[in-house]
Amino acid sequence: MSAPAATITFLSDYGLDDEYVGVCHGVIARRCPHARVIDLAHGIAPGDVRAGAIVLRGALPYTPGGVHLAVVDPGVGGARRAVALSAGDDTEGAGRRLLVGPDNGLLAPAAEFLGGVRAAVALDRSPERLEPVSATFHGRDVFAPVAAALAAGADFADVGEPIDPAGLCALELSVARADGAGLVAHVVHHDRFGNLMLDATGAQLDEVGIAPGTAVAVGERDGARSARRGATFSDVGGGDLLLYLDGLGMVALAVNGGSARKLLAAERGDTLRLAAADPR
Amino acid sequence: MSAPAATITFLSDYGLDDEYVGVCHGVIARRCPHARVIDLAHGIAPGDVRAGAIVLRGALPYTPGGVHLAVVDPGVGGARRAVALSAGDDTEGAGRRLLVGPDNGLLAPAAEFLGGVRAAVALDRSPERLEPVSATFHGRDVFAPVAAALAAGADFADVGEPIDPAGLCALELSVARADGAGLVAHVVHHDRFGNLMLDATGAQLDEVGIAPGTAVAVGERDGARSARRGATFSDVGGGDLLLYLDGLGMVALAVNGGSARKLLAAERGDTLRLAAADPR
Amino acid sequence: MSAPAATITFLSDYGLDDEYVGVCHGVIARRCPHARVIDLAHGIAPGDVRAGAIVLRGALPYTPGGVHLAVVDPGVGGARRAVALSAGDDTEGAGRRLLVGPDNGLLAPAAEFLGGVRAAVALDRSPERLEPVSATFHGRDVFAPVAAALAAGADFADVGEPIDPAGLCALELSVARADGAGLVAHVVHHDRFGNLMLDATGAQLDEVGIAPGTAVAVGERDGARSARRGATFSDVGGGDLLLYLDGLGMVALAVNGGSARKLLAAERGDTLRLAAADPR
Repeated sequence: MSAPAATITFLSDYGLDDEYVGVCHGVIARRCPHARVIDLAHGIAPGDVRAGAIVLRGALPYTPGGVHLAVVDPGVGGARRAVALSAGDDTEGAGRRLLVGPDNGLLAPAAEFLGGVRAAVALDRSPERLEPVSATFHGRDVFAPVAAALAAGADFADVGEPIDPAGLCALELSVARADGAGLVAHVVHHDRFGNLMLDATGAQLDEVGIAPGTAVAVGERDGARSARRGATFSDVGGGDLLLYLDGLGMVALAVNGGSARKLLAAERGDTLRLAAADPR
Repeated sequence: MSAPAATITFLSDYGLDDEYVGVCHGVIARRCPHARVIDLAHGIAPGDVRAGAIVLRGALPYTPGGVHLAVVDPGVGGARRAVALSAGDDTEGAGRRLLVGPDNGLLAPAAEFLGGVRAAVALDRSPERLEPVSATFHGRDVFAPVAAALAAGADFADVGEPIDPAGLCALELSVARADGAGLVAHVVHHDRFGNLMLDATGAQLDEVGIAPGTAVAVGERDGARSARRGATFSDVGGGDLLLYLDGLGMVALAVNGGSARKLLAAERGDTLRLAAADPR
Repeated sequence: MSAPAATITFLSDYGLDDEYVGVCHGVIARRCPHARVIDLAHGIAPGDVRAGAIVLRGALPYTPGGVHLAVVDPGVGGARRAVALSAGDDTEGAGRRLLVGPDNGLLAPAAEFLGGVRAAVALDRSPERLEPVSATFHGRDVFAPVAAALAAGADFADVGEPIDPAGLCALELSVARADGAGLVAHVVHHDRFGNLMLDATGAQLDEVGIAPGTAVAVGERDGARSARRGATFSDVGGGDLLLYLDGLGMVALAVNGGSARKLLAAERGDTLRLAAADPR
C-alpha cells in the first residue's frame, strides 16, 4: 500500500523520570530497527488529554511525515478503543501521516489539522500487539508495536480492524469569547518558563480593542494586572507582563525574565479576563 | 569473537537536567558513530542501586540485544570495580547481551534474568577508558567508552581483564511475606503518576485471600485505606485506590485519576500491609 | 566548502517537559533527515546564559565534530543577533566545528576553547529560516533550520551574511580570587546530586594551602562548615562535605550520599569562602 515511513514522532504523559518512554523505544527498535524516533514531548500533565492534543497538533507542521504515536491515556485498559488513523492527503508534501493512540480525543485536533481521517482501524486485537497485553501499559504492548509496524511498512489495513471514522471520539476545546468588558479566555497550557497559553487568537484581541502596543488589564477589575501587548519579551520591562502571540499564533502571557504563571497564580483551566486598559 | 551489536541501552541516575547523559552520548558517538543509543531511564533516584537494578531487569525483555550500559554508582572512584559482563545464550533470539556498569549489584538481576554471567572483565584499566580518568565521572570516562567499543565490535576479552563471575557483587532485594493478618509488602519504586510498585506477586495476593475483584485493606488496622483488587485504573471510581498487577506483573497500587503515593504518603522502602478487607 | 557534518549537538534551556526540544528535532529531521542529534543538556536554568556557556564548553571535548546548536536566549526577538560561527582548525581531529545560536555570549567560551572564531555570519535574514519567523521561538524558526542546513552540507557562507568576528558578544565569567584568609569562590552551577561547581581551579586551592587530603573550612568564619579535600565521594564519611576537582577539572563541593547545595543552602552566584582549616 505504501513505502516505509521510517519516522515516528512520540508524545506522551509518561514523563522522562521513569522507564516507560525508554521501554517503548526498545519495543520500536525490536520491530523496526531502522525507525527514527523523535520525542516530541513526554511532559504532558498526567492524563491531560487536551494539553496533549493541542501540543500534538501544534507540532505537526514542524515534523516529517510518518507515524505520530501519542499516548495520554487515563482510560487505559477500560472501554476506550486503541486506534490507528490515516489522515490527510499529503498535500503539504511531507509524506503520509498516520496517527496511533487511544480513541479519547487526543488525536482529533491533529487529524482535523491534516484534513480529516480517511481510514481508521481498531487495535485492540491487532496482530502486532505484544501478548500478553497488560491492562495498564498499552503504550508498550499496543501503541508502540503498531507504530513500529507501520514505520516498517506494514499495511495500514493489516494492523487492526476497520472502524467507521465517524464514530471516533471528538475533543471539546475551550474557546475564548468576548463580552461587553473584554475577552474571557482560559489557560490551556503553561510551559517551563511560566508562559501561559490561552485559547484566544490575535483576531479576538483586535476585536475587543487590544491592539499591538497598547496597554491591557489582565484579570478581574479589582485584582487586574497591567500588561502590554507586544511581540517579544523585551518589548516590556524586566518583570513586566507581556501579552503576545506565541510560536503557534495563539495568545499567550509572559513575564520578561520571570513567570506569568507565578505572577498571576494561574493554572490550566483558569479563566482570565483580558481588557483594553482604561487610559486614565 | 562476534558481530557488531550496534544498539546500546543506557540507564542511569544522572537525570536529564544536567549534561552528564548528553556527554556520554557524545563519547559513544565518537567511538562508535553508528551506534543507536536507547535511553531507558535516567531518573533513577540518585544512588538508588536497587531501583536501577529493578528497572533495568524489567526493561530487558522489551529491548533489542546489544550492550546494556547502566550507571547508578554512588561508590564511583572508590573500591568498587567497573565491569562488563557477557550474559545469557541468546535463547530469546534478541542477540547477545552485554552489561556494562559498576559492580555494586546494579547489573545482578539483569544478568540473572538473562541466564547468568558467562564471562566478566574488570574495566578499571580498560584500554578503552578515556585518560585521565576522573574520580567522579566514570560514566563518561570508563563505562560509555567501553560500551561504545563493544557496540563497535570490540572483542569482549579485549576491553578489560578477566575476573571470576562468582566474585561479582550480589543485590539483596526485599520480598513481601505473609503473616497471620495478610501480606507485608514494601514499596520498591514509584512513578510519575504516583503509582507504587511493591515487592509482591499476584500469587502472594491469592495466598492471603486477596482475589481479583475483592476489597482490600491497605495499611495497619487503624489507619488502613480501602482498596479493591482490579486490573486497570477504571476498575475503581475516580479517586479510589486500586491494587493491581503492573506492566511487569508485580503488585502495585494506584489511584484512579490521582496519586497513590500521595494518598498513602508512602515512599520507597516503606512497609505496607495488604489484607483482605473485613466483609462487615 | 566542506563535507557534510551530520552530527548536531543541541543544548538549551527549553527543558524537556514542553515540546520545544522535540519540535526543533522535527525541524532538523525535515531539513537533514540523516542528521544525528545529540541532546547535550536542556535543563540549563531558564535564561542562564553563563551556565549554558560553561556546560557547552565543557562538553565539547567529548562530542564528535559537526554542528553545535545552543539556545539560551532570553533576548529572543530583540536586538541581539542570531549567528553561526566557524571555529577552530580541526587540530584535535574531530572534524570542523560550527556553532549556531544567539550572539549573547553563550557561544563565546566554546569558540575560545576551539581556538577562536575564523568566520561568522548573521542569521537574522538567513535563507534557511522558517517563514514567518516567530518573535519568541527562534530555536524552531532560525537556529534549528540553520544547524540542519549546515549538517546537510550547506556552505557556511550561504546560510547568513558575513559579520566581523571581532564584534561578537563576549561573556564575563566570575573568577575565584585569593585574599589573606583563603579563596573567595562563586557557585557557577549545581547539578541533580546537589554538587556545587565553583569558579576555582586546583592550582588556586594549592596556592592558599588547601592540599589534597587536608581539612577545609567552607563559608565565613562563624558559619563555616568542615570539609576535606579529596578525590571522590567515598573519601569522606557519609553525610560529610567533600572538596574535589570535578569531571571538568574545576573545584566542586559534594556531600557523600547527600546534597552540598542543601547542606550549604547555596545557589548559583553565591560566594563561598574556602580556607585551610585551623589545625587546632
